[in-house]
Amino acid sequence: MTTVQVASPLIEIAQQTRLAASKLALLSTEEKNQAIEAIALALESAKDDILQANVADCQTAMDEGIAKPLYKRLQLDEHKLRDAIAGVRDVGKLDDPVGKVQIHREIDTGLILKRITCPLGVLGIIFEARPEAAIQIVSLAIKSGNGVILKGGKEALRSCEAIVKAIKKGLSHTAVNPDAVQLLTTREEILELLQLDKYVDLIIPRGSNSFVRFVQENTRIPVLGHADGICHLYVDQAADIDKAINITVDSKTQYPAACNAIETLLVHSSIASEFLPKVAAALAAHNVELRGDKRTLQILPNIGSATETDWETEYSDLILSIKIVDSLEDAISHIDNYGSRHTEAIITEDLAAAETFQALVNAAGVYHNCSTRFADGFRYGFGAEVGISTQQMPPRGPVGLEGLVTYKYQMCGDGHIVSSYTGANAKSFTHRDLE
Amino acid sequence: MTTVQVASPLIEIAQQTRLAASKLALLSTEEKNQAIEAIALALESAKDDILQANVADCQTAMDEGIAKPLYKRLQLDEHKLRDAIAGVRDVGKLDDPVGKVQIHREIDTGLILKRITCPLGVLGIIFEARPEAAIQIVSLAIKSGNGVILKGGKEALRSCEAIVKAIKKGLSHTAVNPDAVQLLTTREEILELLQLDKYVDLIIPRGSNSFVRFVQENTRIPVLGHADGICHLYVDQAADIDKAINITVDSKTQYPAACNAIETLLVHSSIASEFLPKVAAALAAHNVELRGDKRTLQILPNIGSATETDWETEYSDLILSIKIVDSLEDAISHIDNYGSRHTEAIITEDLAAAETFQALVNAAGVYHNCSTRFADGFRYGFGAEVGISTQQMPPRGPVGLEGLVTYKYQMCGDGHIVSSYTGANAKSFTHRDLE
Repeated sequence: MTTVQVASPLIEIAQQTRLAASKLALLSTEEKNQAIEAIALALESAKDDILQANVADCQTAMDEGIAKPLYKRLQLDEHKLRDAIAGVRDVGKLDDPVGKVQIHREIDTGLILKRITCPLGVLGIIFEARPEAAIQIVSLAIKSGNGVILKGGKEALRSCEAIVKAIKKGLSHTAVNPDAVQLLTTREEILELLQLDKYVDLIIPRGSNSFVRFVQENTRIPVLGHADGICHLYVDQAADIDKAINITVDSKTQYPAACNAIETLLVHSSIASEFLPKVAAALAAHNVELRGDKRTLQILPNIGSATETDWETEYSDLILSIKIVDSLEDAISHIDNYGSRHTEAIITEDLAAAETFQALVNAAGVYHNCSTRFADGFRYGFGAEVGISTQQMPPRGPVGLEGLVTYKYQMCGDGHIVSSYTGANAKSFTHRDLE
Repeated sequence: MTTVQVASPLIEIAQQTRLAASKLALLSTEEKNQAIEAIALALESAKDDILQANVADCQTAMDEGIAKPLYKRLQLDEHKLRDAIAGVRDVGKLDDPVGKVQIHREIDTGLILKRITCPLGVLGIIFEARPEAAIQIVSLAIKSGNGVILKGGKEALRSCEAIVKAIKKGLSHTAVNPDAVQLLTTREEILELLQLDKYVDLIIPRGSNSFVRFVQENTRIPVLGHADGICHLYVDQAADIDKAINITVDSKTQYPAACNAIETLLVHSSIASEFLPKVAAALAAHNVELRGDKRTLQILPNIGSATETDWETEYSDLILSIKIVDSLEDAISHIDNYGSRHTEAIITEDLAAAETFQALVNAAGVYHNCSTRFADGFRYGFGAEVGISTQQMPPRGPVGLEGLVTYKYQMCGDGHIVSSYTGANAKSFTHRDLE
């Protein structure tokens, strides 16, 4: 704790953020909501600056031959910015996650225990090109009482600078110290940020699978997020064929780059010859490339063949691998081997089969007769999503504001000591929940 | 996922445990409680074997010159064993943490979301000499529906073998497959266990600070526990002197080896000359060695001097460092620098000062006018404690059975797809909480 630390601008930034965050943690809901409204107003005032900065970013990116999907994410037009500002105001309307009393218990007469939610402290958020991500993240951080250190993709540097400048200006007239929001501008600072476990309490990486894995493997700070999203849809022998087709098409094509899109379709052998030709036709209409195992190829001879590698690949694209299985157990076993514990679905009219699937499959989401694409904080009704976690421990699945707070135990006594509760004349605890 | 793994008995053991655990996860509360009672009966039947094995362990340890405190922990007499078996039955009485519905929400007509608690899977528990720890851990694991791989200290090998043998025998006539409980016997297996992130979901190390730190730094599996317990007691200028003395003595001497015992006493300068001589006398009566900063030495000239090292040392012994501070803020700042976020206390009759302390100090426990020794799952009324966590993210502080479960989202629809909720004729979500 007293190790001499090399003077670094980043450590100073982190210390400033921590200091500002410790004051932000104590603000009332009203003060935080006023700050959030001030951010929305400041972003509206700085609209022209932000859009101009983005045009410059886009020009540079184009000159450097940026890939088209990345370019689309980088681009921030008036419409996207207006939506992002509306999103800020939506966060203002969300329930304050701080100060909730989770436990209120009398331990003994005059000795009262409370468990109360409180902010984590400082969040480190590393995101890719999308500049409006900074807007959403900052409003979520302030609502949850946390400081935030942002690092956006280098392509979006000027856009992020204009956004954060506006946010800090907006905050300057509020109870929130603008130091609570910081922007890092160089790539080198990412590794440095990951080492600051004394100042940063949670890292949220938003980017490619390989980037998330890099972050997970290079920090002792807890990481919220997921590297892989290998989701499966299992079409059971008792499936309703029409539902199965609709859900397969939606789960694969509604947004193929999303982590909750399916990569592999598992089909029960007794329904395969009826179902596969129909679903293949429906998927072909959406330009989905199919790759099947040997038995699938006997029914769909014109598709490519799936190898071991396919079962463990997140295509994030209009490609779907297909495997025929002989039982519910075989489907679950395949998911157990290759799934990334994100979202797994069964299509069946057999309630017992659905129950078995939902009980035995180990994943954040286990679905019956609906699309895997529902795995999302907004669709779950959380109002906002800070990420989707595939870890086994909570928070798991889509995480709303609750992922940005922790709790502490407050105990109040009147001179109570533990030795009164031990030995020959030991007092007893009452352990009575209050209210 | 398909990397070729070197055949290892430990991987096989882990796979067996996982398989047994996946069945245990589905058992009813009654079936788990029956298994817990069967364990209690089996331990009673095997009493003589267990005590004999322990005598042999103790003899070997004595021959090898074991340290006295370790010897006391190793020793298992009839009384300790009876208490441990009573503890098993207590766990049977605890509320089942599995199957709790945390969220029950209509997303849209016919599309229902539930968040339900479920077991983590397989626990890896590494503990030191105390053989009866195995008994408590197994009962907690079974109650929470988890498999468990145990590794006890080598000194306790024969005792642990006798205990686990009895437990497995007890389970053999129940719904719980005895494979759900495993005992590792060699030291080399610890590192191997820490690598098994595919099979083990949570590691709970119970041992020295350096051992816990070693575990934290050598695994990607989540670790429940804490390396350090550097707790402070701050005696404010508005403290009641008698309360302050009693609480200081209790917090330091009631069980000095505990993680929630205090290591440093912070005293407000305006009360120091009255308080310090009195508390020094009280502590001297309990053979506590005092070490003070310069200003403390002016009041207590006969004690040793505290250096920087003292502020960052967990003595786990009858030693207490003392520092005089000039304000509540200075006390909080010292705690921020040197505390391990475990349990911190203020003694004051000034409610505003207490509130500031409890709001600003970042620790799992923030106490007012009571002993830090209350930081314990039993005293909090959790019935059982699986460990105390000093991490920032939940679970934090004393963790009961809730630390051994996670949750999954179950969604049930009737052909619902996401594309119905986007675009021109988008349906709306109802997001209506049920029951």
